[in-house]
Amino acid sequence: MASQMGMYAAEFLGTLILVLLGDGVVANVVLKKSKGEGSDWIVIATGWGFAVAISVYVTGWVSGAHINPAVTIGLATIGDFSWSLVPGYIAAQMLGAFAGAVLVYLTYRDHFAVTDDADGKLGVFATGPAIRNIPWNMITEIIGTAMLVIGILGISNSHNEAGALGALLVGFLVWSLGLSLGGPTGYAINPARDLGPRIAHAVLPIPGKRDSDWGYGLIVPIIGPIIGGVLGAFIYQFFLQMWGCIV
Amino acid sequence: MASQMGMYAAEFLGTLILVLLGDGVVANVVLKKSKGEGSDWIVIATGWGFAVAISVYVTGWVSGAHINPAVTIGLATIGDFSWSLVPGYIAAQMLGAFAGAVLVYLTYRDHFAVTDDADGKLGVFATGPAIRNIPWNMITEIIGTAMLVIGILGISNSHNEAGALGALLVGFLVWSLGLSLGGPTGYAINPARDLGPRIAHAVLPIPGKRDSDWGYGLIVPIIGPIIGGVLGAFIYQFFLQMWGCIV
Amino acid sequence: MASQMGMYAAEFLGTLILVLLGDGVVANVVLKKSKGEGSDWIVIATGWGFAVAISVYVTGWVSGAHINPAVTIGLATIGDFSWSLVPGYIAAQMLGAFAGAVLVYLTYRDHFAVTDDADGKLGVFATGPAIRNIPWNMITEIIGTAMLVIGILGISNSHNEAGALGALLVGFLVWSLGLSLGGPTGYAINPARDLGPRIAHAVLPIPGKRDSDWGYGLIVPIIGPIIGGVLGAFIYQFFLQMWGCIV
Amino acid sequence: MASQMGMYAAEFLGTLILVLLGDGVVANVVLKKSKGEGSDWIVIATGWGFAVAISVYVTGWVSGAHINPAVTIGLATIGDFSWSLVPGYIAAQMLGAFAGAVLVYLTYRDHFAVTDDADGKLGVFATGPAIRNIPWNMITEIIGTAMLVIGILGISNSHNEAGALGALLVGFLVWSLGLSLGGPTGYAINPARDLGPRIAHAVLPIPGKRDSDWGYGLIVPIIGPIIGGVLGAFIYQFFLQMWGCIV
Repeated sequence: MASQMGMYAAEFLGTLILVLLGDGVVANVVLKKSKGEGSDWIVIATGWGFAVAISVYVTGWVSGAHINPAVTIGLATIGDFSWSLVPGYIAAQMLGAFAGAVLVYLTYRDHFAVTDDADGKLGVFATGPAIRNIPWNMITEIIGTAMLVIGILGISNSHNEAGALGALLVGFLVWSLGLSLGGPTGYAINPARDLGPRIAHAVLPIPGKRDSDWGYGLIVPIIGPIIGGVLGAFIYQFFLQMWGCIV
Repeated sequence: MASQMGMYAAEFLGTLILVLLGDGVVANVVLKKSKGEGSDWIVIATGWGFAVAISVYVTGWVSGAHINPAVTIGLATIGDFSWSLVPGYIAAQMLGAFAGAVLVYLTYRDHFAVTDDADGKLGVFATGPAIRNIPWNMITEIIGTAMLVIGILGISNSHNEAGALGALLVGFLVWSLGLSLGGPTGYAINPARDLGPRIAHAVLPIPGKRDSDWGYGLIVPIIGPIIGGVLGAFIYQFFLQMWGCIV
Repeated sequence: MASQMGMYAAEFLGTLILVLLGDGVVANVVLKKSKGEGSDWIVIATGWGFAVAISVYVTGWVSGAHINPAVTIGLATIGDFSWSLVPGYIAAQMLGAFAGAVLVYLTYRDHFAVTDDADGKLGVFATGPAIRNIPWNMITEIIGTAMLVIGILGISNSHNEAGALGALLVGFLVWSLGLSLGGPTGYAINPARDLGPRIAHAVLPIPGKRDSDWGYGLIVPIIGPIIGGVLGAFIYQFFLQMWGCIV
Repeated sequence: MASQMGMYAAEFLGTLILVLLGDGVVANVVLKKSKGEGSDWIVIATGWGFAVAISVYVTGWVSGAHINPAVTIGLATIGDFSWSLVPGYIAAQMLGAFAGAVLVYLTYRDHFAVTDDADGKLGVFATGPAIRNIPWNMITEIIGTAMLVIGILGISNSHNEAGALGALLVGFLVWSLGLSLGGPTGYAINPARDLGPRIAHAVLPIPGKRDSDWGYGLIVPIIGPIIGGVLGAFIYQFFLQMWGCIV
């Protein structure tokens, strides 16, 4: 059992790894002269999926590896996580996401300089809508995050006895969400994954960068996932009750 | 052990997840301005494979996660599933598939509006032949679904002791079927996966949609998979007897 | 424990599944109007990898799922398999591969008709050299098959305790071989996988087909894999002895 | 338990397999007329990931399958590996990497001859910068290798009870690093993987080859990974202490 501070440290490291590997794959595909420039969508989705899995293997046994405020709040809402730990978890996740984004910048520094596309450079850090329409973008994020939380709760249900396989399956879940539901908004489904790097985009000395699109970023990828996370947790509980076989 | 109604609820949720993630990946690839627009076939096949795996993890321990009338009927035919549950399972699968398709529509709503290709919009929901030829399209679906059921029965054979890995392997089986046998008809191999969303296509207010191709949809992706499912179950039983080592 | 005839039946079914799913993915990529037409190499390699994994899950507990004469002969050479079963195994593998190829033809029948490229149509069934040079093509097949057998023996070494994961890992091994060593000759690495379907190509009524390239097909994809399989088995044994920790 | 010489032999074979399958996938994508020519980045990253996994399954139970001097030195630095074995491990890794590169040359011999791009031919063997900038290329390699070692230590932490799954997860870790952090320098993250094949490039009779770029190769892909490996080991230890739950 880890101390409370230990759990916060694990959430910090876990979210750092998530964003380093997740935003990293976007940088590889989007930035000029990168070896993965212009790759297929499979690269993005696979990269984010493994980012989650690795993050959970490294930190899951300490903190449960929420690495996502929508998961933390969703679990707390249905009583599976203590509300007293929620603020610390979210703060650690935000800091970790920011730190991960800084590392992505350091890794790809010269590629930001040779890339003209300012939207693409923002896209390395934060999600954006393919077709801007705040209410509908919100619905997309709600559905995606509800599916994320239903999937996590389903995979980790004790009946599955997933054991060491569990973290990999959660990674495959996120791989799947990227492939299937990522088209309209780039699947934030995680407020920390979006806001932490967006702040990094705002403060880092990225040449030729645009504004950080706060009008979208403070609403859709934050509120949408939180609503979706809570909704998903309740839907899963509702089905557990319908199934009449809760242990 | 779940109640009968609980098992129906699980089939509903399982097929909903299957279609949300499965039709979702088609939407991501086919619809205009989607972030995955024009992606490689690997995206489609991987997306459907994970859709199955996740669905089975979430609901398999309750209902066995057939999420496919061809599987339900195939298992009942060889005595591995009670005929009395078949109508309820199929009804739940149909409703779940319809609901999943509605969620795909909500997720990708604005992308349907900007897509001109009416065939592509139907293709998000339902399968269609690359070369229309009802008898041969039927043979393709029969072979694909027989392989599906042989694979499921083979993977879940107790000698494999697949345990928690089993659901993932069934997902990889469907991934494989998409890669290898999906070329001619888009691998329905599941009447609910095709008919439920086809009905959704017919009733949803999709701008610029075509007819729902009932001449094909009521025959090939329904009758083909049912024949294939029963055939596959018998073939597997035949081999079990030849192997002379049934436990 | 299965009867001898049961083991032959398993090798038949296993190799049938291997070729149905393996040649199927080539058909999907190569033939005109197929939904996967022109897909990336990742599709081919992934398709063959899963073809192996599924085949092994369905039949491995009965016959060990060699599904490859080079594996059968390699194991027999180092005393891990009885020579008395070798002829029956190889005959069953050949018949299974032929039957699988017929099913691929039935699945993709109309796509063969609309495809002009006669080399591509042969390529669905049998491997061919990217640059024809019999001795060097042979070396490529020897290296590939030696790596296959070393990988199989390494994965199934009891120290790994791979259990139910083993068949999947062998599938990933073949996925890897396709990605990495498949470039020059299309990685036959299995005489049955190549010869059985090549005979099918010769006898099936495929419109506009070319000759079946027996000058290559009777040499490289048969002799190369057999040499490689035996070599790989000996190399692995040599290392086991060097490691000084054989159980 | 293997003898010391047995462990060196395992490191030799493991690194040989790593480079045969890893450099092999680059050859398949980069060289002319190869069946995988011009494939997507997913092919490269998947190929290297499986190269690692297979190598670890074959040799991991003998030597731990470091197959990477940066891992060997990193583990020794934090006391998880005996310094007395370090020179032998590194020598074996270098020889194995050289031998694997020779096998890649033999496998793809005629494709080197028909390829004009001398940079591409070097790229089969050794990494190079997309944008040459020694200090920043070094930072990229340091971050990538630190992430590699943190991931390995995290996955193999006894709390995960990864068992037979562990080697596959390390392969997925490298798959992920290729997707996400491989863009700027082609992710050497392993001095032996780069230097051994670079020497092979220098001595093999490759037609129309360029110089082996020693100015880059003796600095970035050697010093960067060693610094990163040690740094990653220390960072992981630091977090273990913060988590306050070391076993």
